[in-house]
Amino acid sequence: MKQIKAVADLIQEFRKLPTIGPKTAERLVYFLLKAPPELSFDLARALERLKKETVICQTCFNVAAQDPCVICRDPQRANELLCIVEEPLDALAIEKTGRYRGRYHILGGVINPMAGITPRELRISELKERLLKNSAIQEIILATNPSLEGEATAMYLKEQLKQWAESWQQHWRITRLARGLPTGGELEYADQLTLTRALEGRVDY
Amino acid sequence: MKQIKAVADLIQEFRKLPTIGPKTAERLVYFLLKAPPELSFDLARALERLKKETVICQTCFNVAAQDPCVICRDPQRANELLCIVEEPLDALAIEKTGRYRGRYHILGGVINPMAGITPRELRISELKERLLKNSAIQEIILATNPSLEGEATAMYLKEQLKQWAESWQQHWRITRLARGLPTGGELEYADQLTLTRALEGRVDY
Repeated sequence: MKQIKAVADLIQEFRKLPTIGPKTAERLVYFLLKAPPELSFDLARALERLKKETVICQTCFNVAAQDPCVICRDPQRANELLCIVEEPLDALAIEKTGRYRGRYHILGGVINPMAGITPRELRISELKERLLKNSAIQEIILATNPSLEGEATAMYLKEQLKQWAESWQQHWRITRLARGLPTGGELEYADQLTLTRALEGRVDY
Repeated sequence: MKQIKAVADLIQEFRKLPTIGPKTAERLVYFLLKAPPELSFDLARALERLKKETVICQTCFNVAAQDPCVICRDPQRANELLCIVEEPLDALAIEKTGRYRGRYHILGGVINPMAGITPRELRISELKERLLKNSAIQEIILATNPSLEGEATAMYLKEQLKQWAESWQQHWRITRLARGLPTGGELEYADQLTLTRALEGRVDY
């Protein structure tokens, strides 16, 4: 019994997605085969709409319903604050805290020479242009991930920002998100680096 | 920043699938947003084709490109052997061994009163009809899963088959897949029930 072509093709398509291996792809397809046809058709329609109904904001490079995006258009948001993140999902995570009222800049990834991603592939020249045009910015938050590549990218950006600040006679406060023990975590299970950072960053109590 | 509607809708659709939680759904959608549009469109098309290009074989109730399915149509397969499985994926798993040359019957699930699935919801009356019309069958393999529900269903089927055999003056050999240690598994980590079954079913060596 060979797989039917329509079944094999959909398994193949699902496997192109992250976190979906061959077994999961098979399970998804056989689930859909058993489910009412609307489930497959609704998913198909939502997929088609995804690319048709989204654009990339040409100011912050976030995914948006229109350009400029809701945040870049919002006159209430603080122009003094710019938060640089790797991906749209990172901006979304920060938005969910409800504690950030500034603007964003989406890099579109991290520097990762092994994967062929150099600063050229990221939106760094766009960042430069944006900073050059926008004199209101006072603080730049480097909110790349606390991973090896995220740290390297933050370091690279810090150097770049310093150079630009010098040549443009500018001054920005450059910050990075705090490192320490995650809420709800246990000291006992914290890795050494996290604990070291938590110690180094200890605050008066 | 609220999610864009097209993004939120696709996350919602993905979440209807098994094994995909809210985080994974978000990740899939943002992956597609960054990927070339063909990826989304190809997946959408494959989804639309899934239901349009498949039927349920009215003999064995497996998913098929046409009715009857490839296996039911194949004159080379043994008519003496009938293997009863829960779902199409189970038949596929057995086919992949390349060691089974008989026919299949897909139950469409297992008896699970908690989930409201009684024998009536399974293709048992269809099995009865099939057995009544087909005198070539000599062995019936009960290949439901070695789970609680699978065992209960096998037990129920065995009783049914006995009753039918008696009233039709028929005789079938009724078998069940062997239980024991999985290949590559380690004795040390085997659960008690598996080890008990492996001991009970020990073979001369």
